[in-house]
Amino acid sequence: MAKFQRHVFICVNERTPEDPRGCCRAKGSEEVAAAFKKKLYERGLKRIVRPNKAGCLDQCANGVTVVVYPDGVWYGRVTPTDVDEIIESHIVGGRPVQRLLIPDEKLTGIEPEH
Amino acid sequence: MAKFQRHVFICVNERTPEDPRGCCRAKGSEEVAAAFKKKLYERGLKRIVRPNKAGCLDQCANGVTVVVYPDGVWYGRVTPTDVDEIIESHIVGGRPVQRLLIPDEKLTGIEPEH
Repeated sequence: MAKFQRHVFICVNERTPEDPRGCCRAKGSEEVAAAFKKKLYERGLKRIVRPNKAGCLDQCANGVTVVVYPDGVWYGRVTPTDVDEIIESHIVGGRPVQRLLIPDEKLTGIEPEH
Repeated sequence: MAKFQRHVFICVNERTPEDPRGCCRAKGSEEVAAAFKKKLYERGLKRIVRPNKAGCLDQCANGVTVVVYPDGVWYGRVTPTDVDEIIESHIVGGRPVQRLLIPDEKLTGIEPEH
């Protein structure tokens, strides 16, 4: 059984500046991860909802990428200012934030994790 | 919707040698992650089953820790030689590897991710 009610993975992968795919770290993923950690703590959710840094989630062009399990909901272009809404609407309220979802047709990989 | 049929997160967190909790990296997590990547590729599953390195999964004493989503199945003390069985029995066959499961009562956290 899952320990956590929800497990939030934030891509913090870094690529070289000349890589055309870009990377989540260059787009501020460390700040997004820090915002999840801080706000989940403040909301008293840290024991049941875990934020985790992750290696490349294979959605480089859509970064900063966040995936929430067990739901399997993928968010793209997430900024620290979006984190409150993801927590309140999705994590607490059960309603994923539609405006941040990565459309299914864009959920395509390029190559396996490095 | 989830892009991947299964998403396998392997903790590669590193702690200082004197930390009493130990850490997954010191127990060989990089080798476990590499084994997942290699064998999923060999099995032709790399587009639908993604192995991902992750920060601390909060199960330090049970490392190397692996969690498989969306199932929410937690494995502990995983070695590279266990990876074939996890892939064949669980990922392909749908039967989690009982001998490697972290018991629910041991799925307790110590502190949030660093």
